[in-house]
Amino acid sequence: MNATIIDGKRLAADTRARIARGVAALKEEKGTTPGLAVVLVGDNPASISYVTAKEKACAEAGIHSREIRMGADASEAEVVKTVLQLNSDPAIHGILVQLPLPKGISEKKVIDAIAPEKDVDGFTPVNVGRMLIGEDCFLPCTPHGIVKLIEVTGMDISGKHAVVIGRSNIVGKPVAALLARKGPHANATVTLCHTGTPDVAAYTRTADIVVVAAGRPGTLTGDMLKPGAVVIDVGVNRIPDASRPKGFRLVGDADFESCAAVASAITPVPGGVGPMTITMLLWNTLLAAGGKIGA
Amino acid sequence: MNATIIDGKRLAADTRARIARGVAALKEEKGTTPGLAVVLVGDNPASISYVTAKEKACAEAGIHSREIRMGADASEAEVVKTVLQLNSDPAIHGILVQLPLPKGISEKKVIDAIAPEKDVDGFTPVNVGRMLIGEDCFLPCTPHGIVKLIEVTGMDISGKHAVVIGRSNIVGKPVAALLARKGPHANATVTLCHTGTPDVAAYTRTADIVVVAAGRPGTLTGDMLKPGAVVIDVGVNRIPDASRPKGFRLVGDADFESCAAVASAITPVPGGVGPMTITMLLWNTLLAAGGKIGA
Repeated sequence: MNATIIDGKRLAADTRARIARGVAALKEEKGTTPGLAVVLVGDNPASISYVTAKEKACAEAGIHSREIRMGADASEAEVVKTVLQLNSDPAIHGILVQLPLPKGISEKKVIDAIAPEKDVDGFTPVNVGRMLIGEDCFLPCTPHGIVKLIEVTGMDISGKHAVVIGRSNIVGKPVAALLARKGPHANATVTLCHTGTPDVAAYTRTADIVVVAAGRPGTLTGDMLKPGAVVIDVGVNRIPDASRPKGFRLVGDADFESCAAVASAITPVPGGVGPMTITMLLWNTLLAAGGKIGA
Repeated sequence: MNATIIDGKRLAADTRARIARGVAALKEEKGTTPGLAVVLVGDNPASISYVTAKEKACAEAGIHSREIRMGADASEAEVVKTVLQLNSDPAIHGILVQLPLPKGISEKKVIDAIAPEKDVDGFTPVNVGRMLIGEDCFLPCTPHGIVKLIEVTGMDISGKHAVVIGRSNIVGKPVAALLARKGPHANATVTLCHTGTPDVAAYTRTADIVVVAAGRPGTLTGDMLKPGAVVIDVGVNRIPDASRPKGFRLVGDADFESCAAVASAITPVPGGVGPMTITMLLWNTLLAAGGKIGA
């Protein structure tokens, strides 16, 4: 193996320590405790687990979190009403609606109800538009974390060829937009590949940076890489594994062994992108509490 | 020369004829005449010329246009107030604020004031965000026109490699987003090149489609192209030319002669992208009047 393992846990811990200092300073200087509301509808076990992790991370950083749990039978109007109440609640600076929502509730309508100045996930259309235009906004958490993970390798993103595999609204499209921006920690030439790309390897073989967010194990293999590339693996896939206590193990979208033999640096799964997503959520909540991102 | 010249004037004329039929049908079926408000602040000669062309195109399509001309000394608050009044005017379905605005007036504040359901230019952040996410929205006029110009060549965009040169908010970024979308008339693998790209030719040489919107003559030359590529030239540059009545001629960003020798199809300048931009503005105004794009 040639590649350095990019330690997402450590970067997350370092960043969270900085956030905790920022939270403490905000409390001292302005008497403001950042507050994050987490709206959880229904009892999806994965969602409960994510929400618990977010609340724990908030507590460690000194951020107040408030969980609003609603039954799986809650109506769309009730969920929207809850969001609107949180919009006007001065103790709450960030609002997170855990997705997916139960069937019959329009995620679009619920997300659209979040006030832009409290949209710490960066999912509202107005926030996404501001990001693409290059205005001040909450950067979406996973893409922002990905940029931080590339930076920590020491690679200067500017002028590099970055290939993004996958065009989801949560990862692929926004990370492509962030990497292509003019300015520091960006300015890459970006190619967006997806399920409609006949030969992904034709693009990745010239890439200095590959971000793979396709949701499919084995999407990226070592023979598709240019030697020395930086690989960010966003995939989280469950593979049945009887030898594990839970009966499965987690793997990314990249074939780790073959990619690590060619890349200069690669994120592991788990322990790579995942910890940074929650971290950038805390970051946005701190920004929101400091009034750094306007309406 | 090998390339077919993509006749933007003819495509625009055909499309405007369709729009005129749509306008007539809307009048007959619902008694609604589409109305476009054009806000022009100051006396920039180029802006006056653009506005005049838009109003003429409206008249030919049966769309009612209302010009609101404000002095160069108008305040930001006055311009915003004008936009807000148009937002609640039932005779007006589309609002266009001609850019640039005089110094001292924030274009962002004025554009942000436009109601999303009347944002026929597609410039508001919420509309841009919807476009990137893939929700119903007004497609930005020049990028939408570019897609139509590619289609008219008979090339199926799906699965092709499209290289966009230039990352402006008005052309480069949105056309990259449109071409990469999942769905018909899209689904290309898209590379976004810009001033931070060290070797643009390395990307264009594998491209099936090149959209050049860099604002610089000679950005694209024939030796940078793969034989058979489709070239869309968005540039409009004035070159001093004493032999012309106005003392200049217009050229695009592509070196026409050398590109036309290698490409399978290319847009001329003028007569390529330009006529389609106004056409798609009329299209959006018709959609707005028909209530096709919601708030």
